[in-house]
Amino acid sequence: MAEKEISLAVIKRLPKYYRNLGELLENNVERISSKELSERMQVTASQIRQDLNNFGGFGQQGYGYNVEYLHTEIGKILGLTRKYHMIIIGAGNLGQALANYTQFEKNGFVLKAMFDKKQELIGQTIRGVKILNAETMGQYLKEHEVDIAAITIPKENAPTVAMDLVKGGVRAIWNFAPTDLHLPEGVKVENVHLADSLMRLSYNLKNS
Amino acid sequence: MAEKEISLAVIKRLPKYYRNLGELLENNVERISSKELSERMQVTASQIRQDLNNFGGFGQQGYGYNVEYLHTEIGKILGLTRKYHMIIIGAGNLGQALANYTQFEKNGFVLKAMFDKKQELIGQTIRGVKILNAETMGQYLKEHEVDIAAITIPKENAPTVAMDLVKGGVRAIWNFAPTDLHLPEGVKVENVHLADSLMRLSYNLKNS
Repeated sequence: MAEKEISLAVIKRLPKYYRNLGELLENNVERISSKELSERMQVTASQIRQDLNNFGGFGQQGYGYNVEYLHTEIGKILGLTRKYHMIIIGAGNLGQALANYTQFEKNGFVLKAMFDKKQELIGQTIRGVKILNAETMGQYLKEHEVDIAAITIPKENAPTVAMDLVKGGVRAIWNFAPTDLHLPEGVKVENVHLADSLMRLSYNLKNS
Repeated sequence: MAEKEISLAVIKRLPKYYRNLGELLENNVERISSKELSERMQVTASQIRQDLNNFGGFGQQGYGYNVEYLHTEIGKILGLTRKYHMIIIGAGNLGQALANYTQFEKNGFVLKAMFDKKQELIGQTIRGVKILNAETMGQYLKEHEVDIAAITIPKENAPTVAMDLVKGGVRAIWNFAPTDLHLPEGVKVENVHLADSLMRLSYNLKNS
């Protein structure tokens, strides 16, 4: 499928489509109209048609969308047809929470190792994945191909660790540290800034 | 300060301003030009001027921005001048990770209680906050004012629990369950969909 230049807003919505279609599949729903999909996703039907037209459109007049087909195609667009090797830096509560999400692995994100500097954590396993000594991370990256590294450590150390990861060949950082990382061009960073999210909630409460 | 109708995009950026200005304050930076702020935030200087003009603008020609003043004013806009009572439903790894973020409390989000149904968790305390039996949540909400509830439980139970929270008077939900909640109008929901975030990373890797 030829892909046009796609706006950031559409790309941001794609995982939501994928998730909702996955839920429909779980409930054995075979097809869905853009109206039903729009109610479920709380976006307009015309928005849905526009979004999916970016990828050549998947609907058929009078039939709606084939759920499984649409789910598969959006999965392809999102790059979910291959496996990604993932590591987690920081094996505290948040790192362990991520390690325990079995859904990630179903989508192809395979956790290979975790790293921490706390002696009491090193050597433990979470869902079969070993927590390694943070000092061995550089060596690990020489010996293993890692696609994605999640950073769940305090913000003070995050910039240095992120640079070490990039030097070790990692090209995608999933950053949970509450700071913005400044990394070389070409490195993909996806931030999950929890405090920012909480502030949007207080803003909305204040203005309601 | 009179506030105009502010676009969602600007609102989404405000916490980032607040966080960056907070970091500058920590480093004892008193004032900053829009150019320096733009380099730090990786948005254009004109974007920054535009954004802040929404709130009457805080800059002075030739001086730049007073960091502390701007931080305070944006804090006011974000509703950070008061305290919010927060509870967390689900005291697993993710719930405990949230409970351990001391930064939230510094911003006024005070954790009051956690709830879980696992016997081995009930009665434990995280940073001095007790984990209560999930069955007692309804009664708790009758006796305590709760502004924000974080949901960190599996998606299967999230919709029911969210409705119970709303019935108990909670008007803001911080949802970590990987599903979209359909709640009555007026209830503010802020989603943290981790799998969606991870998929944006695979999309960006695929298209790099």
